[in-house]
Amino acid sequence: MPAASVPDIVVGRLPLYLRALSQMAANGKEITSSQELGERLGISSAQIRKDLSQFGEFGKQGTGYNIGYLTDQLRRILKVDRVWDVVLVGAGDLGHAIAHYAGFVDRGYRVVAVFDNDPAKIGMAIGAFTIEDIVRMPQYIRARGVAVAMLAVPQGAAQAICDVLVESGIKAILCYAPTSIQVPKDIYVQYIDPVLHMQRMTYYLP
Amino acid sequence: MPAASVPDIVVGRLPLYLRALSQMAANGKEITSSQELGERLGISSAQIRKDLSQFGEFGKQGTGYNIGYLTDQLRRILKVDRVWDVVLVGAGDLGHAIAHYAGFVDRGYRVVAVFDNDPAKIGMAIGAFTIEDIVRMPQYIRARGVAVAMLAVPQGAAQAICDVLVESGIKAILCYAPTSIQVPKDIYVQYIDPVLHMQRMTYYLP
Repeated sequence: MPAASVPDIVVGRLPLYLRALSQMAANGKEITSSQELGERLGISSAQIRKDLSQFGEFGKQGTGYNIGYLTDQLRRILKVDRVWDVVLVGAGDLGHAIAHYAGFVDRGYRVVAVFDNDPAKIGMAIGAFTIEDIVRMPQYIRARGVAVAMLAVPQGAAQAICDVLVESGIKAILCYAPTSIQVPKDIYVQYIDPVLHMQRMTYYLP
Repeated sequence: MPAASVPDIVVGRLPLYLRALSQMAANGKEITSSQELGERLGISSAQIRKDLSQFGEFGKQGTGYNIGYLTDQLRRILKVDRVWDVVLVGAGDLGHAIAHYAGFVDRGYRVVAVFDNDPAKIGMAIGAFTIEDIVRMPQYIRARGVAVAMLAVPQGAAQAICDVLVESGIKAILCYAPTSIQVPKDIYVQYIDPVLHMQRMTYYLP
């Protein structure tokens, strides 16, 4: 599998395919086609076939894709045939929503600890967790070998906390703070900022 | 301004530029360059100059960009020189976080109402709002001429609610439900699903 040579834009579509296939499977469906998948996702069937062909031969001309098999293969490719431990930093409103969300574990991720720097929050319950002091975070990450973090802190705090995460051994950061953070080249960052999405839409509105 | 001819991928970067420039302005900075902006965002300076040049001449060779001016122009281009009313559908944990979030209005959006279909929630307070019955949503959207909606409902409910939103006159939907929804061609949808981002990163991890 020539993973290093696959464009990141293709990698970015694989989770969409996996999500759609998992939903089809949950609805009892066993076979699908690139056409059906494409209509569901608003992606051309040719694009889907081309993307998947970068990783192997998953379907036969005319018989479509076996959903269970393709789902297993995509899970393996995206490394979610295991469950990744995730630390959550920030126990504000968004942190609460994330800590309560039950939809991560089936898809490869499990929040294992929640950290904050606010003395008023430390020790309080948040979902199934107790909010822990952020000063204890580096040791926790190192001891447990956690590689993934979610950052739900205010913009002004993001970079400093990100530096601590990287220093502690985190390799992938999902940043909910509405700002761009600087990381070394071998660290992966993805961002979620709802306003960016809304601006991208209102641009087109009259 | 040949708006129709600008690729959506370029449109998608403009909100990033606006966010970075607004943060620079908040820090008292008045002038920047495509180099500086690029380093901050991890985008090449050539790309930034090319993107901005699609909309006009915003800086002079050698003198850089006036941050205040460019910010104003980007706000105008992205139509956030006004404030858009937004209806929020779903008063669960995520809905609460969204309803409490104070970071929308400075960037062009204002939640004006929160709807849910759960009798146990209707009438309860959520941030500054009272949760309203979703059956009253179409009339509210029409009467107020709301164009933008945020959808924070479970996956299984997303499509049906989306259909109601579109029927009521909504033109842009930010969907937090982890699923793909079908809309007519003249409706804009953007998605937020944290798992897609995490899978895109763990793909690269050992």
